[in-house]
Formats: sequence, structure tokens, C-alpha cells
Amino acid sequence: MSDIATLSRKTDFPGLITATGEPWHYLDTAATAQKPKPVIDAMARALGEDYATVHRGVYSRSAEMTLGYEAARRRVAAFVGAKSDSEIVFVRGATEAINLVAATWGAANIGEGDRIVLSTLEHHSNIVPWQMLTERTGAVIDVCPLTEDHCIDLDALAEMLTSRTKLVSLAHISNVLGSVLDVRRAAYLVHSVGAKLLLDGCQAAPRMALDMAAFDCDFYAFSAHKLYGPTGIGVLWAREEILRDMPPWQGGGAMIDKVAFDGTTYAPAPQRFEAGTPMITEAIALHAAIDYVAEQGVEQLLQHERALAGTLREELRSLNSVTLFGPEDSAGIVSFALQGVHPHDLGTILDEENVAIRAGHHCAQPLMEHLGVPATARASFGLYSDESDIAALMRGIERTQRIFG
Amino acid sequence: MSDIATLSRKTDFPGLITATGEPWHYLDTAATAQKPKPVIDAMARALGEDYATVHRGVYSRSAEMTLGYEAARRRVAAFVGAKSDSEIVFVRGATEAINLVAATWGAANIGEGDRIVLSTLEHHSNIVPWQMLTERTGAVIDVCPLTEDHCIDLDALAEMLTSRTKLVSLAHISNVLGSVLDVRRAAYLVHSVGAKLLLDGCQAAPRMALDMAAFDCDFYAFSAHKLYGPTGIGVLWAREEILRDMPPWQGGGAMIDKVAFDGTTYAPAPQRFEAGTPMITEAIALHAAIDYVAEQGVEQLLQHERALAGTLREELRSLNSVTLFGPEDSAGIVSFALQGVHPHDLGTILDEENVAIRAGHHCAQPLMEHLGVPATARASFGLYSDESDIAALMRGIERTQRIFG
Repeated sequence: MSDIATLSRKTDFPGLITATGEPWHYLDTAATAQKPKPVIDAMARALGEDYATVHRGVYSRSAEMTLGYEAARRRVAAFVGAKSDSEIVFVRGATEAINLVAATWGAANIGEGDRIVLSTLEHHSNIVPWQMLTERTGAVIDVCPLTEDHCIDLDALAEMLTSRTKLVSLAHISNVLGSVLDVRRAAYLVHSVGAKLLLDGCQAAPRMALDMAAFDCDFYAFSAHKLYGPTGIGVLWAREEILRDMPPWQGGGAMIDKVAFDGTTYAPAPQRFEAGTPMITEAIALHAAIDYVAEQGVEQLLQHERALAGTLREELRSLNSVTLFGPEDSAGIVSFALQGVHPHDLGTILDEENVAIRAGHHCAQPLMEHLGVPATARASFGLYSDESDIAALMRGIERTQRIFG
Repeated sequence: MSDIATLSRKTDFPGLITATGEPWHYLDTAATAQKPKPVIDAMARALGEDYATVHRGVYSRSAEMTLGYEAARRRVAAFVGAKSDSEIVFVRGATEAINLVAATWGAANIGEGDRIVLSTLEHHSNIVPWQMLTERTGAVIDVCPLTEDHCIDLDALAEMLTSRTKLVSLAHISNVLGSVLDVRRAAYLVHSVGAKLLLDGCQAAPRMALDMAAFDCDFYAFSAHKLYGPTGIGVLWAREEILRDMPPWQGGGAMIDKVAFDGTTYAPAPQRFEAGTPMITEAIALHAAIDYVAEQGVEQLLQHERALAGTLREELRSLNSVTLFGPEDSAGIVSFALQGVHPHDLGTILDEENVAIRAGHHCAQPLMEHLGVPATARASFGLYSDESDIAALMRGIERTQRIFG
């Protein structure tokens, strides 16, 4: 085994200890990440001594909270390499971000007979909103196949695109396989037919440096809770000129210009898409999460997680009766199957050893069908992961094989 | 002055102290409530040593978090007097709850020429979603007027209702005036023409005992952050038989039964309306908030806040040049105007005295137009409010009058 240290102190994360005080080998970071203390502290402070509403109060604490909320938006803008913070919409999570794009930009720009391209490996959150849109509009979904090593096949994409293609929506990194999309090539292909590119960045945002200008995509969605931040908040980035013209989705306070029963006018983006009291304390805590991740070194995330995934793949391959899914250079997410052991049984036995993996369809049933399995076992890494976690997983797998052997 | 004690210890609320350690006279609880320590602690624990995702993990901590999340749903169900916890949908807040009803039940049941009744005093969140629905469907909005003392005029409502009326959507308590709706009479009238009744319970949930069976409404919406809970979560209650048949709104993980590119099927309610990773830690903290409020005595809330509002109205009336809005028996929310002083100037001067009120249109521009003012000053109470807050407000108002006099 090589020697891979964590990118952060495990002791920064209260969640990485079991109730009995032992190390918890948490290998389900692709589902949701544990939170470092600065995030928890920022949340507690925002709910406590700093608490007030935003955008409306005339008293100073509300003005300060508004500054904090908008500073979080600027921090996100810098983190993703946005042109301006008005390209950042705070949403509940990536799922809502994609639904928002489908219900506003999609409904306005995608009509009967138009094509939407997805891929076989998409998460349900990047499938179902588009299916709902096709039901409403009569548009059609095309499914881009995968290469043999389970990456989105961009050669096939090139052949599928037509002048009727209005949108291509793809996972930047697969939540099941860790396959990384060649974003620049995808954007080049998509734009060559005049379509827009949405990237589901849920797994990429916590694993690589984001740069919207370099990616050249049109929409980017991710959730804070996978980026070491709180639940209940996520981000939609969209190009300023697209967001500016998008019709509103949810109506209410804060998203309006003037309300009257004989006609209401709306605020400019991004406020137009943030109806109601926002996720105030969640935005503050997301700011703290981004600061924390940046301190550990965003540039090293992918290398760190690829090294761990590579080591795990190597170890798994040395066992008998293991099937590995996904590409060799997986970005920190390893799906596998043990012959004769259902993934749920493996997960349950590992739990007894203080090892947490995910077993299931990972909200990617079409991919499961493609792989020919009902479920996989999945180990996924974070910046707090190291080889002790892999060692614990391997001990647990070997024990499971003895039990089932 | 009579002698009204708080219903809770002010020291339970870290937010009620200024940065310099002085008491903060927070009179903006109708905008958002301060959080008691048990809520902040529950949030920190959920983000820390208890943290895991829900509904999907095979390891025990995820199973425990799922129990906690669903226990929060049961706690909400008991708190509102629901028939079952499957009537409770977790949403971002009341705004999203109303948008959800408009986009699903509304789009399926309200057509061209149908009527939706709102009132003059509604919050923008209970106006704009319905305006958007009428644009989509060709339905028409009728506006129920107010009585002379600024309550929703149910005699006028009775005359407006027709067989074309499909929905009546009203504030249970006005966020500007504190007017309390006679819910039972409203429900009787609305149901007598076969329409449904939605209640915006944002201001009622923190101020009175809720009982869906007794209210006999069809939909009820409120936000956790006004109920001493966290931001980023709220509740839609709907009658089981209505919710069961409502089409989905946002697509994604957790709300599906089975996803395939040739056709997706959906989960039953309430899961069908909770796409994506939910507001996990927010639900846990909302549970703690409800427990806290219940310990202080839900039955005493309205009496407490009415007593404070009554005292404040009396004090204000004793000053020269004060206009009071709203009914005498206001439920803890008092809007007023000082002649010759813009509400924003009053708010700013009060801020220097550690008194926080709200000044503005309170997201109720049609009501402002009805009252003939661009804005009001509003003082609103919570369970931590007492006469010291009123005394500080009155000192600040007197100082303001001297400055402007």
C-alpha cells in the first residue's frame, strides 16, 4: 500500500467518531460529507448571537446578516469562477437547481419535438425533471451511451446532437462510478449545434477546482451538504445573460419588484429566483465550508481522492470474486460487487466494524440496469479519508467473505 | 402598565443580547423568531456527532438519522393535529408550500374562468403564486375586502363565493396587523360552494394552538424560522385524500418509485413532494423548536401576545400624532405610524436604543395601498417578549418625537 495522508485533520470532524469514541471509517461522502467544526460553529453563531433576518430589517443586526448572506454569495461566485455574484442563485440543493432550470429556462426554450440529451449514468435528479418537462412540452429525451470503461461517450454524443437539441445535461462526475466528464469537449460539441450545457456538479464541487469560464458550460448545479456544508442549501450558477432573461419560478416575497392585484413585476436575477425568507444561516455555514475546503487546498482534492480510489481498486482486485465498475482514474468513488454477497449484507457487516459504505442503486437505476446489477456497493472518499479507512474496509470485506464463503 | 412576564426565559435565547452584552429589545418576531439554545444545540449535534444522510444508508447512524427525521415529521403532525404524519410535507418554508400547492393541486384543479379568492391583507407569498397560476390557466383572482378594523370581511367573502370558486387562500393571522381569521366560519363558507381553503399559518403557528381537524381547512402552510426553529425548512399540511392525488412537482431522488428512460413512477405522498436530500438537520432542529414552544405552553401564547399588543396599543394611543392600524385584539403584531416621521427613520433611531422593529411594506403592498401609506412601523412580539421591551420601544419613540418635533 502506498501512503496517502488526509488533506485535513480528522479531528476537525466530530462526525468521524462513533458514539463509543472509536474512529468511524466513513466511506459515504458521495452521499453527504461530514462537517468540520468551523461549519458547525458558523451555523450555531448564525442561529444564536448573530441571528436576524436579511434584506428587510432597518436595524443594524439585520444589515449585518444581509452583508453576511451576500458575502456568502460572493464567496460562492469566487469559488466557482463566476463572472459576477449575480450569477449565483441559492437553492435548496442540486435537485432544486435542476428543477428550476427545467421549469423556467426549459419551459421557455424547449418545445415540441425538441431534444434533450442526458446520459445513461445520470442521477435521478438529472433525469426526472427533464421527463416532467417532456410531458409538459412534447420534447424528447435522447440518452447518450457510455464507453466500455463507463464514461459518458462523447463520440456518441457528437453523433446524437442535432439542430433540434436544445439542452444537454450531464454529470460532471458520476456519483456511482467517479467517471469524470471531459467538460471542455462536451461544451464544444454542445455549443456547435447551438444547444446549452448543464452540468450536475454535485460530486465535482467537493473534488476539484471549479472554473465556469474554463468549463464553458451554461448551467452548473451543486449541493452544499456534499461540499462539507449544511443541508438545505445548494447553488445554481447560470451565465448572466441566460439568468437575466429566465422567467420566475416560485412567487413570493423578496423576488418581486412591485406587487399589485392588477399586475406584479419581478426583481432582477438572482433575487427573482429566491422567493421567501432564504436559507440564511445555511448560506453563512456554506461560506465557512468553502473557506475550510479552500484552506485544505482545492487543487489537491482530485489527486488525493484519485490516489485513494486507485489504492482501493488495487486492493479489491487482489481479492477473489470482486467485480469493479467505473474507470481506473475514478475521482474518489468506487463501486463494486462481491460475488455471492448482496451489497446490503456487505454494508450491514461493515457497519459492525465501524465502516460505512453505501449499498443500493444510488439514485441511478438506469445505470444499474446498464451494469446488469440491482445494486452496487460503493465506497467514496472525502478530504478526511486516508489509508486507515481503506484498511478497515478491506478487513471488513475479508471478514464478510469468510462469513459468506 | 399591567405586568406581563415572558413565557420563557430570555436567557434561553443567545440572540437577545447585543454584541456589547446589553439586552436587545427584539420586536421583529413576525419577520423571524430568535432561537432558543435547545434548537441551536440540536442543530449543532445533528451537523456534528450525529450527522449522516437519511433514507438510504445501510449503516446504523444513517438509520438513526432517518428515525430522527421521521420523528420530526411525527412531532409536526402531532403539533398541528394532523390525522397522520403522511399529511406533513417538509418544504423550504411557507412560500414554497404555497407555490407547491399552486403548481400541483392548483394546476390540476383550477382552469380557465375558475375563481381564486384572496384578501387585501395577504402577504406577497400568498398572492404571487396565484397570479402565476392564473397566467398559466386563465383563472381569475377575486380580492376579499377588509372590515373597518382591518380583518378579512367574511360577510363579503360569503357574497363573493360562487360555484366557479375553486380555492380560497387566506392568512390565518395578518403579518402586518395581527388580525385573526375566524377560520371555522371561513371553512364553512368555502366548503359550502365546494371550494378548498388554504391557510397561510406563518404568524399563527407561533402564536396559537393548531388543530387541523377543528380548523377544517384543506391546506396549511408555515415556516420553521418564525416558530423559533431554523431557516431553510417549513411545513405544508394537506388533507390526506388531497395530498394522495396531487401530482408531483420537483423531480429527483427520494420522490420516485422506479426511474427508467421509458417511464418513471412516483412514490406516495409525502415522499413524492420531497425530491432530493432533504433538510435533514433543519427537521431535527424544528423538532427541538416545537418541543421548546410546547414546554412554554402553546395554549398561553395567544393570550400572552394579545396582552402585550393591547398594552402597546394603549401606550401608543396616549402619545400625540400616532395612527394605529389593525384590530384591538391583535395577536401580538402592532402596525402604526408617527405623524411626520418616516417608519425607516423611526427604525433607525430605535436601533441606536437597542430596539429592533420592522419598517416597510412587510411584503404586503396591496394592504399598504389599502391603508393609504407606503410603509408602516411594526412591533411584533414573541414568547420571550415582556413589558421591558415595550418600555424600551416607548422611550425610543418619545426620543424620536423630540428629535423630529
